Amino acid sequence: MKVNKNYKNIAQSYLFSTIAQKVNEFTKNNPDKKVIRLGIGDVTLPLCEAVVNALKLASDEMGKQETFKGYGPEQGYDFLKEEIQKYYANHNVELDSDEIFISDGAKSDLGNILDLFDKDNTVLVPDPVYPVYVDTNTMAGRKIIFTDANAANDFLPLPDNSIKADIIYLCSPNNPTGAVYNKDQLKKWVDYANENNAVILFDAAYECFITDNNLPRSIYEIEGAKTCAIEFCSFSKMAGFTGTRCGWTVVPKSLSFEDMNLNKMWLRRQTTKFNGVPYIVQKGAQAVFSDEGQKQIQQNLSYYKENAKLISDVLTKHNIWHIGGKHSPYIWLKCPNNMTSWEFFDYLLNNVQIVGTPGSGFGKNGEGYFRLTSFGSRENTKEAVERLDKFLQ
Amino acid sequence: MKVNKNYKNIAQSYLFSTIAQKVNEFTKNNPDKKVIRLGIGDVTLPLCEAVVNALKLASDEMGKQETFKGYGPEQGYDFLKEEIQKYYANHNVELDSDEIFISDGAKSDLGNILDLFDKDNTVLVPDPVYPVYVDTNTMAGRKIIFTDANAANDFLPLPDNSIKADIIYLCSPNNPTGAVYNKDQLKKWVDYANENNAVILFDAAYECFITDNNLPRSIYEIEGAKTCAIEFCSFSKMAGFTGTRCGWTVVPKSLSFEDMNLNKMWLRRQTTKFNGVPYIVQKGAQAVFSDEGQKQIQQNLSYYKENAKLISDVLTKHNIWHIGGKHSPYIWLKCPNNMTSWEFFDYLLNNVQIVGTPGSGFGKNGEGYFRLTSFGSRENTKEAVERLDKFLQ
Repeated sequence: MKVNKNYKNIAQSYLFSTIAQKVNEFTKNNPDKKVIRLGIGDVTLPLCEAVVNALKLASDEMGKQETFKGYGPEQGYDFLKEEIQKYYANHNVELDSDEIFISDGAKSDLGNILDLFDKDNTVLVPDPVYPVYVDTNTMAGRKIIFTDANAANDFLPLPDNSIKADIIYLCSPNNPTGAVYNKDQLKKWVDYANENNAVILFDAAYECFITDNNLPRSIYEIEGAKTCAIEFCSFSKMAGFTGTRCGWTVVPKSLSFEDMNLNKMWLRRQTTKFNGVPYIVQKGAQAVFSDEGQKQIQQNLSYYKENAKLISDVLTKHNIWHIGGKHSPYIWLKCPNNMTSWEFFDYLLNNVQIVGTPGSGFGKNGEGYFRLTSFGSRENTKEAVERLDKFLQ
Repeated sequence: MKVNKNYKNIAQSYLFSTIAQKVNEFTKNNPDKKVIRLGIGDVTLPLCEAVVNALKLASDEMGKQETFKGYGPEQGYDFLKEEIQKYYANHNVELDSDEIFISDGAKSDLGNILDLFDKDNTVLVPDPVYPVYVDTNTMAGRKIIFTDANAANDFLPLPDNSIKADIIYLCSPNNPTGAVYNKDQLKKWVDYANENNAVILFDAAYECFITDNNLPRSIYEIEGAKTCAIEFCSFSKMAGFTGTRCGWTVVPKSLSFEDMNLNKMWLRRQTTKFNGVPYIVQKGAQAVFSDEGQKQIQQNLSYYKENAKLISDVLTKHNIWHIGGKHSPYIWLKCPNNMTSWEFFDYLLNNVQIVGTPGSGFGKNGEGYFRLTSFGSRENTKEAVERLDKFLQ
């Protein structure tokens, strides 16, 4: 048997293991010092009451003969797809129910969607970037090219017509930078894709952090997107589902390449290689859209956003260049005094015991930058901000 | 963008839609007749109490700050992997915890595992077969060859040394035939694989139906299997998880090809393209292994097995050749009077209003055979058996 040798080319990431190592060493040598972690990319607030109640009700249903559910539709139950349909309608995007596929999270589908594409395609990925875009294409042996996201373009690269790309990754609000495309900028990408017969894989996992109604929460707010874009979204950050696993993928029915319809191909892929998301979890996700659920998740999102504001404010006060934090849980800052990302990591850990994520871990353009997140507790975030404020005087 | 044109070669299956059509038509024309469905491949008994309680407890945990769980390990929580480890130890298979990967079901992993293999491999699939083995490899453009399962070999084909295969699918107890390999037979496959540098993908989704301790429930009961086999298993049939979604995949650490270790490759695949099974669901699965859970799921399995015996007994009484039903929820019978599968389908529907699955839907060797399942209710199964008994006089 011949193995897939592309696996040899996947870069090993030591980012988070190196962070853990450094923090462990520091803690061992300084047992009296309290380390505050603002590097975490995971939510920390519990599931809201409406969701928990729905999960328990659905569990009871599964225990009774009359209401038990066996195999569900691989593409998800209508009750959840219809809520998502309404959610899109709220920002003026009309989708058919069979354009929405319930997934166990954006990460799975961002990887699995590649099943639909030939190996012989050129993939365009912004740098810095969520490493999964690169790794999944490396596994499949595709050619990857990068587009620079940097301070000059506010970490929002635009298409370059001299470059021919077939598969384009966009993430807005961005992980790791927190930068958000506006409609005009996204329109440029949509036009490029339609002109170049390319497909855009639009990662909207952080759309729920957008508060400015002029900023697009979905790529389908842009004219022409339905003939070039697939959108991935998730309950992970919206409703704290990182450990509960539910998301969705939109594949428009008008999306065709080489006479093959991607909506039909994806349906075929999912019915063959997937068996759907647990009924219980889909009921939990449905509750997110109830009046109660919406109120409760908005409280949680506000909590994170207020944390982000606290962090952003102290950076502004001390003239540290940064973006994100406003429509995103991530704050992306320029390391002061031209420190490298890892120098600044050590500097913060040793002086104020704050742990963040070195930007260089996300690509070459991340060097000299640093990611802080708003997913910590209010208490810890406040304490971290106070420490920073004092130290940066 | 170039699409994956292999999708054009996937056969369209009209098996279950044709069944539905025929049943609908019959019901329309005979509104007074009660149709009994014994074609269903899905469990019908609700989740047992121990599992429901665990699901609800875990939901409560997710709603509290102190016990909330965000991202879990992609390969599953130790608490569940350790239970599975013990489950294997009970039939004398020793596995390390990091050889077990928790999945959202056997179907997903049976498809996703193919990521690890080169396109240029020859796949050997028994006919008749669970269609997913063929479809997933067709999607990837691999060459597929078939080995005949038929009455001459009791629907348990053995390796043919004149054939060179790289990836071998075995399913025991088999879907659709219910046939079970004994240890000597499986040893022949393991030896073939080791000698031919092939990998066996062993689908053990129905192992929980085996009651004879001499029959292997895991391929790792066979010496040499850890250097050639990957095993897929599931809570779907064992504990009624078809709508709750949990299973596991075993990739031994001693499994290497061309100097690449498949255990490490699969870990890399899963950490890159998967985010783990919901914490709540893993807690539910853990409860399957509690004393209470074991007692309760055994009651359910006995219920299905007694249904199977009722069906098998009436076929035996009327001299209808069949296999399965003993260590499997499926009964595979030879259509009487040399009817084709679809002729027998119509014959049963029209005369006794029993719906089964035509064997020809599972491959050419299924022609002239028919699948009945034990997943119906006791009441319906009894009534179906009485109708058959009278009619076959």
